[in-house]
Formats: sequence, C-alpha cells, structure tokens
Amino acid sequence: MAGSVDIQFKLEELARLLDVPLNEAGEQARDMLISGLGTLENAGPGQLAFLSNPRYTRQLADCQASAVILHPDLAGDSPRPCLVSPAPYVCYARASQIFAEAAQRQRAERESSGPAIHATAVISEHAFIADDVRIGPHVVIEAGVVIGAGSQIGAGCYIGDDVRIGAACLLYPHVTLYHGVQLGDRVALHADVMIGADGFGFAFDGQQSVKIAQLGAVRIGDDVEIGASSTIDRGALDDTVIGNGVKIDNQVQIGHNCVVGDHSVICGCSALAGSTRIGRYCVLGGGVGVTGHLSIVDRVTVTAMSMVSQSITRSGIYSSGTMLQDNAQWRRNAVSLSRLAETSRTIRHIEKRLQQGNSPDSGNNYDERGRD
Amino acid sequence: MAGSVDIQFKLEELARLLDVPLNEAGEQARDMLISGLGTLENAGPGQLAFLSNPRYTRQLADCQASAVILHPDLAGDSPRPCLVSPAPYVCYARASQIFAEAAQRQRAERESSGPAIHATAVISEHAFIADDVRIGPHVVIEAGVVIGAGSQIGAGCYIGDDVRIGAACLLYPHVTLYHGVQLGDRVALHADVMIGADGFGFAFDGQQSVKIAQLGAVRIGDDVEIGASSTIDRGALDDTVIGNGVKIDNQVQIGHNCVVGDHSVICGCSALAGSTRIGRYCVLGGGVGVTGHLSIVDRVTVTAMSMVSQSITRSGIYSSGTMLQDNAQWRRNAVSLSRLAETSRTIRHIEKRLQQGNSPDSGNNYDERGRD
Amino acid sequence: MAGSVDIQFKLEELARLLDVPLNEAGEQARDMLISGLGTLENAGPGQLAFLSNPRYTRQLADCQASAVILHPDLAGDSPRPCLVSPAPYVCYARASQIFAEAAQRQRAERESSGPAIHATAVISEHAFIADDVRIGPHVVIEAGVVIGAGSQIGAGCYIGDDVRIGAACLLYPHVTLYHGVQLGDRVALHADVMIGADGFGFAFDGQQSVKIAQLGAVRIGDDVEIGASSTIDRGALDDTVIGNGVKIDNQVQIGHNCVVGDHSVICGCSALAGSTRIGRYCVLGGGVGVTGHLSIVDRVTVTAMSMVSQSITRSGIYSSGTMLQDNAQWRRNAVSLSRLAETSRTIRHIEKRLQQGNSPDSGNNYDERGRD
Repeated sequence: MAGSVDIQFKLEELARLLDVPLNEAGEQARDMLISGLGTLENAGPGQLAFLSNPRYTRQLADCQASAVILHPDLAGDSPRPCLVSPAPYVCYARASQIFAEAAQRQRAERESSGPAIHATAVISEHAFIADDVRIGPHVVIEAGVVIGAGSQIGAGCYIGDDVRIGAACLLYPHVTLYHGVQLGDRVALHADVMIGADGFGFAFDGQQSVKIAQLGAVRIGDDVEIGASSTIDRGALDDTVIGNGVKIDNQVQIGHNCVVGDHSVICGCSALAGSTRIGRYCVLGGGVGVTGHLSIVDRVTVTAMSMVSQSITRSGIYSSGTMLQDNAQWRRNAVSLSRLAETSRTIRHIEKRLQQGNSPDSGNNYDERGRD
Repeated sequence: MAGSVDIQFKLEELARLLDVPLNEAGEQARDMLISGLGTLENAGPGQLAFLSNPRYTRQLADCQASAVILHPDLAGDSPRPCLVSPAPYVCYARASQIFAEAAQRQRAERESSGPAIHATAVISEHAFIADDVRIGPHVVIEAGVVIGAGSQIGAGCYIGDDVRIGAACLLYPHVTLYHGVQLGDRVALHADVMIGADGFGFAFDGQQSVKIAQLGAVRIGDDVEIGASSTIDRGALDDTVIGNGVKIDNQVQIGHNCVVGDHSVICGCSALAGSTRIGRYCVLGGGVGVTGHLSIVDRVTVTAMSMVSQSITRSGIYSSGTMLQDNAQWRRNAVSLSRLAETSRTIRHIEKRLQQGNSPDSGNNYDERGRD
Repeated sequence: MAGSVDIQFKLEELARLLDVPLNEAGEQARDMLISGLGTLENAGPGQLAFLSNPRYTRQLADCQASAVILHPDLAGDSPRPCLVSPAPYVCYARASQIFAEAAQRQRAERESSGPAIHATAVISEHAFIADDVRIGPHVVIEAGVVIGAGSQIGAGCYIGDDVRIGAACLLYPHVTLYHGVQLGDRVALHADVMIGADGFGFAFDGQQSVKIAQLGAVRIGDDVEIGASSTIDRGALDDTVIGNGVKIDNQVQIGHNCVVGDHSVICGCSALAGSTRIGRYCVLGGGVGVTGHLSIVDRVTVTAMSMVSQSITRSGIYSSGTMLQDNAQWRRNAVSLSRLAETSRTIRHIEKRLQQGNSPDSGNNYDERGRD
C-alpha cells in the first residue's frame, strides 16, 4: 500500500467495525493483527483476503492470507479464520474504507494540526462556511457560497458565487465550480473536476455562431462521486441534474440540461450530449456516447464505446461497434461493409429468383429459415 | 436560474436592447416586467419565451409566458405581446446574453469593488497589461506577456512567457497557456483549458522514443470559445491555428499543426490528430476522431463518434460506426461482420454461378472458394 | 518559432552538439549561422531542414534551407551543406531539443534570477527537496514528499503526501499528484495531468454502490512523458504501473491496476479500463479503448478509435470500426448491418440449396438487379 503508514487492526476489531461475525477459527484468533487487504491470490500473512466470485473458490486452498472474508456457506466449516458475510464483496469494500481512513488519519497527524482554513485561501466575507470545514492552500471562495459541516476543500479549488456545498463533501485539488452550482451531502469530486461551465449552445445567424448564454445551473445529489477531469455543463434555461448515488468515472463529459437518474454509473470517457435523460440504475461502459435529446429508461446497460443515437425504452444490455480484428482482415471486411446495402439487395434478388423458379417444392422449406 | 440574483427588464427595454420591434399587443404592454427566459413549454408569467422551430407552433396556444419572440408571420396577428424577429432563435440567443450580463453585474457588485488585480497574483514586471484588465487570485503571469483592454483572467490561471491575449478576452479559472500562445479579441476559455503543450512528436531510434521539441506555437483567432478541459497542442515547427469564430466544446483535443477554419464548430470529446486541416463552417459532432495529415473542405458535417481517416473533398454529411442494438443481436451481427469479406465472396460466387446457369456439377469448384 | 527569442548556432557547432559529421560542402560552410529548423518544403535561408522519408527526396532540389540533415547515401555527393546522419529523423529530433533548450534558457534569463523556490509556494516542513529543485508560485507540497535533483515543479502544482519525484523531472503547471505516487527520473508531466485519483471501484449492495477504497498507488518509470489532462488512477490493492520510456499523449485515461510495458506509446484520448496489461513497444492510436482485465503482448499496434475487448496474444496491427461514408449511404449500410446475422443465415441456406442441386435458369432477370 502507498506511503509510509503502518496500520493494524485486531481481527475482532475489524469484525466489530464491519458488523459481521467471525467463524469458529476466527473466534480463536480474535487478537490476530491484520495490517492490510489483498486478493486471494496475492495476499500474504497478516493480510485479509476475500472471496466473492465462486469461480475462484479453488484458489482458497493456496491462499496465504491470515484471514478471509467468506460467505457463510463456505466459512462455516473452514479451519481458516474468517469474517462471515453474505455479501463478501461489499464487506471487502467496507473493510477497504476502514484501512483507507486509518491511513488518511495517520497522514494528517504528521502535520502539526494547523488552522482548518489555510492562510493563503482567499475567501469572500459574504461566504457562509460551517465551523469544521477544512480549506486548503490557494483556494478561492466567492460571495454567497455556503459550505456544510465537515466538508473539505482541496488546494487550489475555485468555488464560484452562490455555490452551495452540502455536509461532508470532499473536493480534491483544482476543482472548479462555476456560480450557482449545488452539491448535496457526501459528494466527492476528484482533481480537476469542472462543474457549471456554459453548455455548448449557439444560434447560427448565417454568418457566425451567436452565443446562447447558459442561465441554468447544475444540481448534484447526495453520495455522488465524480472522477478526475470530468466536466458537467450548466443548463441553458433549466438545470443540469445528477441524481443521488450516481458514480461518474474520469474524463466524462455531461452536456447541458442532462438528467442522470439515481444510482446510475458512468464509466470513464463517456459523454452525454445535451438534454438527454438517463434513468436510474443504468450503467454506461467506458467511452460510450449518447447523442442529445434522448431518453434512456431505468436499468439499461450500454457496453463500452457504443453510441446511443436513439432513445432506449426497454431495460437491457445494448451495444454498437465492431469487433477487433487483424488489420488486413479488418480492411477487407470494412470494404465489404461499405457495400453492404448493395450486397443485401443482391441477396434478396437471389432469394426471390430461387423461390420463383427452381424446384418449387423447396420454396416452403426455404421460408422456414427464420425458425431453425 | 442560478443564484440569488433578481433581474427585471421592461418589455420595451428588451426590444430596444435587441433592436427588434414589438407587435401591437407588445406595444400596449411595453411596461410589462420580464424577469427571465423560458421554453414555450415551461415558461411562466413574467418570462419571455421563443418559438424558433415551426414544429412547436401548436405549443404556442398553451404557452404561459408573458411575452414571446416570434417570427413576423406569426407575431402580426397574435394577441400576445411579442418581440418580432425574422430569426427568433438568434434573437433569443441575444436576449439570453442580456440576462446573463445583468446577473453577472449583480454578482460582481456584491463584493466591495476591490483592486482589479488581486494581491495574490504573481505578475512579472516584464508583462504589459492594459489598465482595465481584471486578474483574479493566485494567477501567474510570466515575462513578455501582453494582455489587451478589458480582458479578465480567472483565479489560478497560468500565463506563460510571451503569451499575447487580445482585448475583451475572458479566461475562466485554471486555464494554462504555455509560452508564446496568441489569442485574438473576445476569446473565451473555460476552466482547465490548456493551450500550447508540446505536440506529441517522437523519433523512434530503434530502442526508445526521442523527443521532438515542439518549436511552433498556437494562434487563436477572434471570437473563439473553447470549452472546459479542452487541449490544443503547439506546433512542431509551424503553429497550430484556430480560425475566427470557431466554437469548441469541452474535452476536445487538437493535435500539433492542425488548422481549423473560421466559424467551424467542434463538439465535445472530439479529437484531431496532428497536421490536419479542417475547412470553414464545418461541424464535427461529439466524439469524432480525425486522423492526422488529412484535409477536410469547407461545410462538412461529421456525425457523432465517426472516425475520419481519409481527406474529405466534397462538402456534405459523413458518418461511420454502427447502430446500437440489443447486445445479443449485436453479438450475432458482429460475428457475421467479422466474416463479411468472405461472405461477400461467397455471394459473388453464387451470382456468377447463377448467371452461368451451372448445375450441380460445379459443387466442387464452389467449395474451393476459400482458396482462391 | 514562438516568442521573441533570437537563437543562432554555427553549423559546426550543431554538428558537434549532435555528434554527426558534416559533408564536404558543410565543412566549407562551417561558420554558417543556423537560426532555426524547418521542413524541406518550408525552411528558408538560415534554417536547417531534414529529409527522413525517401518519398520526399525530390523536394530536395527546391529546398531553400541553408543546410539539411541527410542520410550518408544522399549527403556524400550533395553540393549543399549537410549534417550527415544514418537516422535523419532522430538527428532532427535531437536538433529540435538543442533549439528548444536555448530558447528556454533565453526566456529564463529575462527574469532577474529569483530564488529557486517561490515565496508563495506552501511546502511542508516534512518534505525532502534537493538543493537545486525549482518550485513555482502557488505550489503545494505535502509531508513526506521527496523531490530529486534538478526537478522543476510548475505553478500551481499539488504534490500529495509521500509522493516521490525523481531527478530532472519537469512538471508543468496545475499537475496533481495524489499521495504515494512515485515518479522515476526525467519524467515530464504536462499541464493538468492527474496521477493517483481513486480507481473506479464500487461494490453494488443491491441498493447502492459502496465505495472500494483504493489502497494501491501509481508508479511511473524513467523517461516517461504524459500529455495535458491525462489521468492515471491509483490501484485498488496493488499499484498501477507505467514502464520506462512510455509516452502518453493528451487526455488519455488509465484505469486502476493497469500495467503499461516499457517504451509503449499511447496516443490522445485513448483509455484503458482497469487491470489491463499492455506489453512493451506497443502503440495505441488515438481514441483507442481497451476494456478491463485483458493482456496485450509486446509490439502490438492498435489503429485509431478501435476497441479492444479481448486479449491480444500475437504482435501485429489490429483494428475495429467502420469506414467513413456519405451519411445517406452509411444509413443504408447500417440498416443492412443490423440484419447481418440473418442475412448470413440466408446465404448459408442458398449455398446449401445450390450445392444440393437446384439449377436456376433465370440468369437474365437476375442481371437486372442493379437497375431497379
């Protein structure tokens, strides 16, 4: 793990923090010290591993970890100290948070605990900042800003006029929030996130593009996390809206007036053009593009690098694009593809001709082709 | 609309500012107060709507807006107060600017109007800055920089040596301009725009990549707007050039030595590889990629997520890619596609055979098709 | 070339710095002053051109450059002053570095050489910084950071806890390094590069996404260059690793736990999902996407905008996607493509039937297909 920190928990302490029971072998090793997490394959002595995908069950035998997070079906009989959870992957996620927070505390303690607001921050006297907010060096906070309890603003962030940041938010360095942006509680914004720039709107007057000022704002729900260098534009008239629990990866672009439903997940480098609505519990794979003014219903998954150019009205999994091939073969296929409509017409002619003339008795069988 | 601002214009005042006439009903309501803009569908009392797309004409009847921007053909007879414009969408664009500027003035007035140049800015004594330039906190301006009248440099921007910024430019926070970059007048750069990093040029010596220093610069024309996190590299020997009136959306990447013609529009996440020339009045949809050393003539539109890998010599609309499908169907089609060249050959054989009138004895030859 | 600098080298001086011989005409012009570089086509008097691609040999006759970098096969007999190199493109690369460094020195000399560490930088007393490191304005350096000799940290960079930066590294403005990131020697990071944000990992508990804390770090090798706004996430348990000599263009995204082999090249806007391994000497074209948990062997090239969704086990060139077409034609082909699996089945049926012995007789009608 990164850095010079040195963290240890007793096994029973982890069980308590995670609110899960130990199996019998675990009870007997309750004072065992656990200093980190690892995969079944790579974890060593002193580490805690986890088994979430049954496919890897046979790796369990060779696992060198001192303890494992296991499903009750497997943990019961195991001679190995186990944290027992019906959802081992979620339990591992929570354990990872425990270790990360401990490491973060250790790093913070090395600095003489200075003032919560760094002397180099430039803060409007018309801003309203809760008492325990931490503000890093070189931050700029404009008038009318409200920041809720426990939030942290990283070095060099710019918080524009009238921005509202909820409680327990975490802004990493160099985040930019334009005026009027609203964040819910427990929102995490990674470095270089930009929220609230002008949507891309122009009216062409025959000679040039006349700017349409973007008068809406952006509203971000609770428990949202947004990855580094992602950008979300403000609305033209109404707001751009990101629902609760939405997770957005790095370098994602969300156009003006989009609405992303609660708990949807958008992977890296995806982009939504303007005025598109994504439902709840959707998953957009990496590099997906969605053109503007569409609607996608709840629980739709779009696989990586697909383009969505029509609304999706049924939940399911969707894809576009072509498979990777050897370049020489790809070239041949690409040429054929560029004539595909013509080829299809040829085939319809052949079919028709075969059906019309030749050995009439096979016509019927032929028409059944769709059913085999 | 975002923030706590409270803006009102009389209807006649808007007509004057927009330089358009009122219809008769408008003349009678010239003192009516308008506090914002809205769509035909959503605007309420006190708001100004607009009708630009004839498709929505029937929404006019139910529109709750106090006034509407209408084409003269519709406005003449209307009992509703109207601003009359032959180009309602452009008129709406200009109206949006009026409201945005008023809001901006209101926000600025809340702060005691401090010095135009923030005390925390670090400015070379060898920079030449016009009198009314505004420079935000934590800005860095290196030697040889020239900044024209009325320009504003947002918090945390970095302006490298010998950069020239024209008049009335607007740089949002965290913009980075490398040495020697030139901006025309009225250029707007959104947060995290980067202009002038080294183009991606290396000479492979058989063992490793030897850097080709990028000795050119970047020249940006007048009235250009560039969206958040877009990047434009400096040229290898000559300059990278962006024409007048070009509009670039967020997260666009423009490689070294590209030339983009006047008034072209590049939507979000598109990318131009090096040394590519785009004509005037082109439109690249979102996520378009253009490979290097190509030329595209004037007035070409490329639809979203298409790849341009050959020069385009005729204006028109171009596309690549495949349509979104249900994943199971997509998989079947993708497999067929990966054999398409072979399938096409099969069809040619069938055709030939049918034309020749061959009978069953050619079956063996037919089976040889894979080997020719 | 950018800026107001004025640089000149004698031809013999360049030959010495580049460690290459002059041809006979060059020896006789050894005191000739060279003030810059240019292409064969555009270079003028006083400039040095180069010929690396034999395709352009005939341009040599019309070249106005005062001297040329030429292969010995061509330089020997040339009446033109030449720097003679068996690898003219690599020689040009080195020459470009010589001019760039001279320009950089000139720019630096204009400023009264102030202290190496700017007064506005905020540096932890627990950081370890070599004596000749230069640190720009508004930089933030946290506890435990180590920075090696000769490195330069640009304005506004944020260097998190326990980051290790090797010798002779060059960080342009606004770079963000999260805690625990490690850079080798001679690493160049362009503006807005972000290294070490949390990988995109969540465990879905049936209701919401539970964050998996990212406990690994990022390790970057020696001689790596990373373009503006590129992002590299930290690992979940183990580290994300970028090998020696790797060159990464702008706006590239690299997910957690990826491993990129030595000397590979990744062009702009490409993205690697998590846990993917790229071999040595690979080249990913612009806009390439690689899905997660794959392996790609050494010396694989993937062409622009291709998607890699399976491991690649043999070196070679690979592609996916379709060719650009006129939009009307593209639409027709796209519709045919969406029925391709069915069409392929039809063809198999036709083939089978023909092989079984049906003998068509309507060849003439058939030939009319193209005219309807």
